[in-house]
Amino acid sequence: MKTAVVQMHVCDDKRANMARAAGFVKRAAGQGAEVVVLPEMFNCPYQTKNFPVYAEKAGGACWTALAETARENAVYLIGGSMPEADDQGRVYNTSFVFGPDGGQIARHRKAHLFDIDVPGGQRFKESETLSAGTEITTFDTRFGTMGLLICYDFRFPEMSRVMANRGAKVIFVPAAFNMTTGPAHWEILFRCRAQDYQVFTVGAAPARDEKGVYVSYANSIVVSPWGEVRLRLGTDEGVGLYDIDLAEVDRVRMQFPLREHYKPGLYETQSRL
Amino acid sequence: MKTAVVQMHVCDDKRANMARAAGFVKRAAGQGAEVVVLPEMFNCPYQTKNFPVYAEKAGGACWTALAETARENAVYLIGGSMPEADDQGRVYNTSFVFGPDGGQIARHRKAHLFDIDVPGGQRFKESETLSAGTEITTFDTRFGTMGLLICYDFRFPEMSRVMANRGAKVIFVPAAFNMTTGPAHWEILFRCRAQDYQVFTVGAAPARDEKGVYVSYANSIVVSPWGEVRLRLGTDEGVGLYDIDLAEVDRVRMQFPLREHYKPGLYETQSRL
Repeated sequence: MKTAVVQMHVCDDKRANMARAAGFVKRAAGQGAEVVVLPEMFNCPYQTKNFPVYAEKAGGACWTALAETARENAVYLIGGSMPEADDQGRVYNTSFVFGPDGGQIARHRKAHLFDIDVPGGQRFKESETLSAGTEITTFDTRFGTMGLLICYDFRFPEMSRVMANRGAKVIFVPAAFNMTTGPAHWEILFRCRAQDYQVFTVGAAPARDEKGVYVSYANSIVVSPWGEVRLRLGTDEGVGLYDIDLAEVDRVRMQFPLREHYKPGLYETQSRL
Repeated sequence: MKTAVVQMHVCDDKRANMARAAGFVKRAAGQGAEVVVLPEMFNCPYQTKNFPVYAEKAGGACWTALAETARENAVYLIGGSMPEADDQGRVYNTSFVFGPDGGQIARHRKAHLFDIDVPGGQRFKESETLSAGTEITTFDTRFGTMGLLICYDFRFPEMSRVMANRGAKVIFVPAAFNMTTGPAHWEILFRCRAQDYQVFTVGAAPARDEKGVYVSYANSIVVSPWGEVRLRLGTDEGVGLYDIDLAEVDRVRMQFPLREHYKPGLYETQSRL
């Protein structure tokens, strides 16, 4: 499963971002990619005030552009994320996924909003302008079942557990860690979720722009089900291509049968204390 | 909370192992330790055939020696683990914990047995001679609530989640990773559990003996609730001392309120699908 992670810059021009993303998808497909992942908020600078301004409904111009990009390049396109408006005026941080025929096959709305407000320190509150999704998202492809979550969702191990239980062998994570959390936690999270649930983890982040309104850690990554870093980009724009061998998931699970030793009754009983 | 991890060699003489452990506890206490942690199976070479042979009941000679060592040195002693026999002839991989007065304050029986049997590869089946514990173990000290699990238990994130929910600010892990799993997973696990549940994690392993029946990865470790490695031993015998500031747990949880954003209803609903 030839998988491309797109690490791109994001500017304040939504159309320019869409065109830039389409260019990267085309380049990835030209290199043989069958699955392409874009970063979180790839069409909107990552500031809460922008989300309602940049938001569009499913079926709108950005959604349509992604669908066409998937179809033209005949790839599965995991559309990073973008601000999505619903009919009630709510805005979500949403990832749309399209199949090679351009049809939407999944939609994940970020379920854990990143709200941080340290007295005298960092402040970022997605919940000022965003609503939280209420679902855990997996979807089927011709390669098998995949999991999809967005950035801060990845902090909550149970989401990945549920995905693996549903049969996901890869977890895709459009994300935009910052320069505090990135160096501290990014690689550890991708490696630990991969080894705990014996899945591939794939992270796609915006490229780093030191002068941007939000400085992304970048370092887009692919990790194996044994927890090995198989691909890691730096801070610049680019496409990373890695050929995922899904049989590796089965091999690791056979050789190290963590899932057979899992005891859901134990944790449930105890957590009700 | 001055915490000592003891990384010691284990030989086939049970009494010699007990005396060796007592010597290390005394040395640690002499350096100011208030809490001392011993490694997994510190009194018994790590082979399934040994467990029934070395096993003793609670209240037996080894249990009594640990209790006296705790009292004599006025420390909390997390007694690594040793084979424990019960009245029905079952044997457990058990960690006894004693307070500074020598009284037992906790007992954890390893709940996830390490069973691996790769055709043509590694084979190790704790379940051939051991029974599994059925509890998640936390205990109170004058410093606060602590969590305790043994080695392979640590692979199952929910155990640590339950401990943190019960108020544990430190999770102690007597363990003996091998030369396959150690380099691949040891540090990642201690760092990721620490950052996910915002607790200190403390691992105590046997020293490495390249000619032993089981070659321990060693690398005993202390990690902060932000996921930073604060202490890491090498492969030799020794005592590592680290002064844990439990206020750090509160600071990290205040600055990065992961626990407030946790949505148990979301994962429960979905995992019942």
